[in-house]
Amino acid sequence: MASEKGVVLLDFWVSPFGQRVRIALAEKGVDYEYQEQNLAEKSPLLLKSNPVHKKIPVLIHDGKPVCESLIIVQYIDEVWSDKYPILPSDPYARAQARFWADFVDKKMYECGTKLWKLKGEAQEEANKEMIDILKLLEAELGDKKYFGGEAFGFVDITFVPFTSWFYSYETFGNFKVEEVAPKLVAWTKRCMERESVAKTLYDPIKVYEFVCFLKKRYGIE
Amino acid sequence: MASEKGVVLLDFWVSPFGQRVRIALAEKGVDYEYQEQNLAEKSPLLLKSNPVHKKIPVLIHDGKPVCESLIIVQYIDEVWSDKYPILPSDPYARAQARFWADFVDKKMYECGTKLWKLKGEAQEEANKEMIDILKLLEAELGDKKYFGGEAFGFVDITFVPFTSWFYSYETFGNFKVEEVAPKLVAWTKRCMERESVAKTLYDPIKVYEFVCFLKKRYGIE
Repeated sequence: MASEKGVVLLDFWVSPFGQRVRIALAEKGVDYEYQEQNLAEKSPLLLKSNPVHKKIPVLIHDGKPVCESLIIVQYIDEVWSDKYPILPSDPYARAQARFWADFVDKKMYECGTKLWKLKGEAQEEANKEMIDILKLLEAELGDKKYFGGEAFGFVDITFVPFTSWFYSYETFGNFKVEEVAPKLVAWTKRCMERESVAKTLYDPIKVYEFVCFLKKRYGIE
Repeated sequence: MASEKGVVLLDFWVSPFGQRVRIALAEKGVDYEYQEQNLAEKSPLLLKSNPVHKKIPVLIHDGKPVCESLIIVQYIDEVWSDKYPILPSDPYARAQARFWADFVDKKMYECGTKLWKLKGEAQEEANKEMIDILKLLEAELGDKKYFGGEAFGFVDITFVPFTSWFYSYETFGNFKVEEVAPKLVAWTKRCMERESVAKTLYDPIKVYEFVCFLKKRYGIE
């Protein structure tokens, strides 16, 4: 790993947003200081670094904060541009990558949260929505190795952290990813062969326990 | 205007999202075919070009569609990179521009819609939220000429279409932009001196009449 002075990541272990940044930094071989954050009592540094959203992840590079995971990943790609390229170079391919990363960003977490937070009809609706989301992503992946083709890239980095949440989504919802989107399961395995992904993602059971903890905290039976 | 074969924009006149794309194309001097869409009865071309979101704007370039306004503006910047630069070249400045464009994108339309759609307490809350949003943007602009400094750029293009909605927001809400964010009013005037903006934005009264039409359609008194 190259030594990069002054790279600090404010993050929270299970966050799929933070994990994107960790995977990107690992792909680029950037050494950094990881600072786990207590989200129940936000640190002065987090509040000062992201006063607008007050959220992790925040990448602090040479004292300057960058916020919002997709923006951070693009920043990393542009600063360490001589190493592993995350976004393709062709403008149309870049736009497509941004489109699907944005799609995952807008849909996956919100819909997944509804699966464990809601009950009855609203939860059934979220279940249908999740199946639709997975089917759209399955169709976009198709027979490609990664979302961008042969190279692991922006959409993969954006989406892969959610795969360790699939077990929770399946358990609280009513579907099996294997049945709905078998190509995504094969893709997950390919991604997990990369060190950057394998060392960043957590065991789905640990994620499930975390979701159970959240349910309890929110008083959801 | 340079002639660019095969650039088609599917759009709807009053859309602040579509207007971003029109301003970006004008700044780059790209000639294009404008196709006004009937959003009550979406065209086969729109549905085929944006099957995921089924929304305008869509830029079709050499037969290939690009969707989502901020992604389209970045695409335009990258394809016509030899003309007026929309995003700055420095990675940190780019990340900052993306951050504030994303902030406007996530907050402004949704909060503005609440102002004319909701009533009572929920509407009062939206009113407070809008004031907070405007104050944050006012603080970010500060004494700069444009959001990125001396040059009209990504955040300006993202935000300026909403300024022709301010009159509607003020009328349905309970605040005056002039009082809450006087620097934004001065910035609006500076933006309106640019041909790209002046020829794209509509009279706030026309926008207000459109919002009244929407209220009627949704059965809101």
